[in-house]
Amino acid sequence: MLTVDVELKDRKYSIIIGKDLLKDVESFYPLNSGDRVMIVSNPTIAKYHLSTVENTLFKLGCHVDHVLIPDGEKYKTLESLNLIFTALLEKNHSRDTTIIALGGGVVGDIAGYAAASYQRGVRFIQIPTTLLAQVDSSVGGKTAVNHSLGKNMIGAFYQPISVIIDINTLNTLPRREVSAGLAEVIKYGTIFDVQFFEWLEKHIDKLVSLESSLLIYCIERCCQLKARIVAQDEKEHSDRALLNFGHTFGHAIETHLGYGNWLHGEAVAVGMLEAAALSYLNGDITENDVARLELLLARANLPTYSPDGMLSKEYLPYMKRDKKVLNGELRLILLKSLGVAYITTNISEDKVVQAIDYFSQL
Amino acid sequence: MLTVDVELKDRKYSIIIGKDLLKDVESFYPLNSGDRVMIVSNPTIAKYHLSTVENTLFKLGCHVDHVLIPDGEKYKTLESLNLIFTALLEKNHSRDTTIIALGGGVVGDIAGYAAASYQRGVRFIQIPTTLLAQVDSSVGGKTAVNHSLGKNMIGAFYQPISVIIDINTLNTLPRREVSAGLAEVIKYGTIFDVQFFEWLEKHIDKLVSLESSLLIYCIERCCQLKARIVAQDEKEHSDRALLNFGHTFGHAIETHLGYGNWLHGEAVAVGMLEAAALSYLNGDITENDVARLELLLARANLPTYSPDGMLSKEYLPYMKRDKKVLNGELRLILLKSLGVAYITTNISEDKVVQAIDYFSQL
Repeated sequence: MLTVDVELKDRKYSIIIGKDLLKDVESFYPLNSGDRVMIVSNPTIAKYHLSTVENTLFKLGCHVDHVLIPDGEKYKTLESLNLIFTALLEKNHSRDTTIIALGGGVVGDIAGYAAASYQRGVRFIQIPTTLLAQVDSSVGGKTAVNHSLGKNMIGAFYQPISVIIDINTLNTLPRREVSAGLAEVIKYGTIFDVQFFEWLEKHIDKLVSLESSLLIYCIERCCQLKARIVAQDEKEHSDRALLNFGHTFGHAIETHLGYGNWLHGEAVAVGMLEAAALSYLNGDITENDVARLELLLARANLPTYSPDGMLSKEYLPYMKRDKKVLNGELRLILLKSLGVAYITTNISEDKVVQAIDYFSQL
Repeated sequence: MLTVDVELKDRKYSIIIGKDLLKDVESFYPLNSGDRVMIVSNPTIAKYHLSTVENTLFKLGCHVDHVLIPDGEKYKTLESLNLIFTALLEKNHSRDTTIIALGGGVVGDIAGYAAASYQRGVRFIQIPTTLLAQVDSSVGGKTAVNHSLGKNMIGAFYQPISVIIDINTLNTLPRREVSAGLAEVIKYGTIFDVQFFEWLEKHIDKLVSLESSLLIYCIERCCQLKARIVAQDEKEHSDRALLNFGHTFGHAIETHLGYGNWLHGEAVAVGMLEAAALSYLNGDITENDVARLELLLARANLPTYSPDGMLSKEYLPYMKRDKKVLNGELRLILLKSLGVAYITTNISEDKVVQAIDYFSQL
């Protein structure tokens, strides 16, 4: 079992990473006998893991309830959030309760926002069950639901008291979702750590086939990189925004297609390539850097082109509605080199369209 | 113009109190020319004050939008909250926007929660237009919406960047709402400051008739008392809970009748009397103390009895669902003496029922 500590301004919490953690009462520190717990999950994940988690919590002496929300990004809504509040109120959960998110990014984001909001804040534990959630959404305290006019527009910065990453949960994950998780893994190398990028170029095939020891190292490294940046900038006033590399483009794809048609990681893969192409057109990185990123994503079985029929100029209205927009100006993350990212507002809309067209022009 | 500073752990903000403040660009510090603003109000208040505020903000050079939510406690819901998000997104407001709450407690609570949640937090200014909101809900950063199973169950602790209290807004306030505000005013004296209680016994009639200089002193004193307690305990881990004096009983009344039938302050008035009766039955205060409180509330034109047909035992199920419940035990605020309150969990349900029956037994 490995531990990554996330140091925040006023407290810290631990991410534990390993195998068989969900069966082990020790994983659930700091819960105690007598504590009340509400597990939030979805039917797909509950089938595999709910009874395991419940049994471990029973052994610990907790009073456990659960509520299931529908599976999928399109249910990441105020309505699903309200299902959680209703369950908490029907079972008379007080502000001393703990909400446990058991699932992927959608469950984590909604359950986290429910924890931030229920009675103005209760304790929260994350058990991310997808690779994407393990390396990304479970670290850093961003919680949210979607609005029909934009993704993640409603939410809170709210930190868990602990995160439990059990790689056993990846065995039941669809291959396509493993790949989507690897998109975010590749992002960390691309924006923060060229050595990790090179490590990924060497081991990507074994990660695709879920080799345990490599997987644990990979998750640990991503959590370390994310924990470092979150510690520096919890509320995304500066460097934390670098983590949005590829996301402004990616959100445009997701919104255009309707949530849930492409997986988030798939949209981010293409978004990263478009941001890399823009960095190249802007004179920052080489064509070869773009090609290396493209190859790595392709080996992870990720898409490397815009969705069929989505025109480059169709990205812009969505991109302008992005949270990273500052006084109406696009704020984009570009690459200075592989492993080094920066934020800029000084990019014309024409150049953005050119970058989106880059791959179809090759 | 008077100023009360609220000192928080990591920053402070000011409450300014006076006449004609809404017409004065200086009131709107720290807004600047070029800033975007979304005013949240309701049709009743907008009719009287929206154009005044808009004109002052235009003079300052701000870009101003507004959104109206339906008037009344029963609309303090996730649905009304979503109206605000939709308006913000339709007008492309970014995370640099400022939300201004122009209205009473309902508008302030919803708009504040919208500010806490929109893009995970934007700036927020309160312009409370009711006496209740001026002395209570606009100080301290509690924001929330209701759930059909309980009041204020969904929300956040979120502090404004400033609060503007213009007593001109009280001239158009229905008399019943002035009285409801005086219930909270009387609460401050009752739980924190026996001298202020005595001042109120002397001046309550002039407050009922809105005499300006007395009103400004009264609001200032309440804001000072509340600011002091919020500075000590922003998230209500200890002493801030004293402010809930009468509220556990009062919420039971409001929930039983359905939101909006009694005003919050009216329910709190009766709730305070029931809590005072409980303090007397518990051996803490004298019958005369209870009678002084009853008389003061009556002079402020507030109800002093349970609603018709609401049985004392009907309070308990609602009270047990209150946020102040700790592991299933009722947590109540009682009086040690006039001006001194304390929190206890050591009260039997029988005694609670007796206290509710106290007034019908006299």
